[in-house]
Amino acid sequence: MLYAEPIDRLIKAFSRLPGIGEKTAARLALYILNAKGDYVDELVASLSDISHKVALCSSCMSFSSVDPCRICADELRDAATVCVVSDYKDMMALEAAGGYSGRYHVLHGNLAPLKGVGPDELRIKELLERVGANGVEEVILATGFDAEGEATSTYIAGLLKPYHVKLTRIASGVPVGSYVEYMDSVTLSRAMDGRKVFE
Amino acid sequence: MLYAEPIDRLIKAFSRLPGIGEKTAARLALYILNAKGDYVDELVASLSDISHKVALCSSCMSFSSVDPCRICADELRDAATVCVVSDYKDMMALEAAGGYSGRYHVLHGNLAPLKGVGPDELRIKELLERVGANGVEEVILATGFDAEGEATSTYIAGLLKPYHVKLTRIASGVPVGSYVEYMDSVTLSRAMDGRKVFE
Repeated sequence: MLYAEPIDRLIKAFSRLPGIGEKTAARLALYILNAKGDYVDELVASLSDISHKVALCSSCMSFSSVDPCRICADELRDAATVCVVSDYKDMMALEAAGGYSGRYHVLHGNLAPLKGVGPDELRIKELLERVGANGVEEVILATGFDAEGEATSTYIAGLLKPYHVKLTRIASGVPVGSYVEYMDSVTLSRAMDGRKVFE
Repeated sequence: MLYAEPIDRLIKAFSRLPGIGEKTAARLALYILNAKGDYVDELVASLSDISHKVALCSSCMSFSSVDPCRICADELRDAATVCVVSDYKDMMALEAAGGYSGRYHVLHGNLAPLKGVGPDELRIKELLERVGANGVEEVILATGFDAEGEATSTYIAGLLKPYHVKLTRIASGVPVGSYVEYMDSVTLSRAMDGRKVFE
């Protein structure tokens, strides 16, 4: 061990964060060592707050400091439309895109049997309860278009069939700003299949 | 504000770390939200420890959890040779390289008048006291070869002249693994000037 023990411990803790290797962790730890003022106190306080003040919204399962969350509590958001996402950050990305005025349901993952993630590990039961009870008219499946995201949407679609709600899937195709020549053939086939009348 | 307040606060705190932009900060914060077990407790504890358990070694000014630090307390390290570095991380890099058996002195920065860093902001006074009192025979200047590092070494060399110690500067030249053709001309001139008898 090269560094003093408390520094080494902090480097180890930082290097467990995603995308932070040992070199970056060391750089962050040395920044913390040199940090002026009450920055470290602020970081410690905000980390502690996360576990004490943030919990799952009992309705949509997103992270929130209030229950129900701001979106579920917002009377202006259409409660009859529920957009199902794999992760909280997908929900944040859709919110940042703007334009969607319905509500959400966060699964907290995708089905991944090889990683030991089955239906019971996801918030699927809560979705079924919500669709069964709440006058939901449309469920938008907005999981990713990777293998796990697709499997998760297919699985949930099967479960929701008996509920007689409108089931939709967000569109797949060429992203805005991309060139056709660089797209893979599966995406291009989908884009072709999903073509719409030019207005 | 898109995220719940405690999450937003943590993102802001993370994004003050060096090299961490807002997107990465959000990714880290969401990892923290989902973190299992006592990882967050461990991170908080190690951050708190840093301010309580780590202080400057009263001899070499490096960060340490004991005083004097492990290197200054090591009787096997030559107390007559002091290697002056700008930062704690430079000292760590030299230690990782191995082979040096003297001691260190950490300045905690380089002279940078335009950034408001003058001699009083660095641990220069402590270096002079140490060289004056301790039977130091050689001072190795190991600040960087950027403009600020060079200016700092030159300034310290001037101050140390009256002390009649041997003053050396680490070598500048072509780094191991590098091609001559890609080196800038200043480096090549230095490498030429610093040539040694081939053995």
